[in-house]
Amino acid sequence: MLLEDAGLERLLDGWPIARLATVAPDGRPHLVPIVFARAEGALWSPVDGKSKTGRTLARVRHVTHEPRVSLMFDDYDDDWEQLWWLRIDGRATLVAGDPAAEAALRTKYPQYRDVALYAGGPLLIRIDPEHVTTWANVPT
Amino acid sequence: MLLEDAGLERLLDGWPIARLATVAPDGRPHLVPIVFARAEGALWSPVDGKSKTGRTLARVRHVTHEPRVSLMFDDYDDDWEQLWWLRIDGRATLVAGDPAAEAALRTKYPQYRDVALYAGGPLLIRIDPEHVTTWANVPT
Repeated sequence: MLLEDAGLERLLDGWPIARLATVAPDGRPHLVPIVFARAEGALWSPVDGKSKTGRTLARVRHVTHEPRVSLMFDDYDDDWEQLWWLRIDGRATLVAGDPAAEAALRTKYPQYRDVALYAGGPLLIRIDPEHVTTWANVPT
Repeated sequence: MLLEDAGLERLLDGWPIARLATVAPDGRPHLVPIVFARAEGALWSPVDGKSKTGRTLARVRHVTHEPRVSLMFDDYDDDWEQLWWLRIDGRATLVAGDPAAEAALRTKYPQYRDVALYAGGPLLIRIDPEHVTTWANVPT
């Protein structure tokens, strides 16, 4: 399991935000920030109660068409020697609720006491990692 | 020009980092954080002297194949009522140096006093915005 690395687990569990890239049916890339939690060797992001346009979300439509997705975890620092990023490329599937993922999300984000975990019926994007890439700006 | 909005210009000029999504020739999405500056109604990101793998960068190969790209600007906040993001979808072209863009990058990032603006020959990714999308978590 790609995520079974203590350092990686710690980073993912402590990192509140990822940027999710999907590909639209017409071949364009699409980007959105997501919250996520780790469970069952995968990353999970709910279609939650934060403001939505009302239509089916682009990310949901896209992964039905093209399951390959990319997730970016990084932080900016004015000291460029501190820059790093972690990218997880994987495959997304839509899952209508998962108790372990829901528990992990509620534990990671106390905000879900006030915000609905699901905007409508239970819907999670499950991302199974296939490739992890790390980068740090080590001057040569 | 899509970027000619005072609020948007201020945000872009003050925001140090964007996440760039491209599409690989095999149709996968690809993500990388980039630095950028605004000039001539476009956004510009150099292939600079921060650590690289040595091969031609994926982002450079990808935009040659598929010029449509997506840029995400956002910030995380534990107070989810403060969440916002701004996405710019546009078209990328490769440019072998541009004085206005180089000046804008050097002004925005004093780090370029120590880090080479170009890893090799002058190479900039120019992104011409085609669509700007904003989101804020306004509770309903």
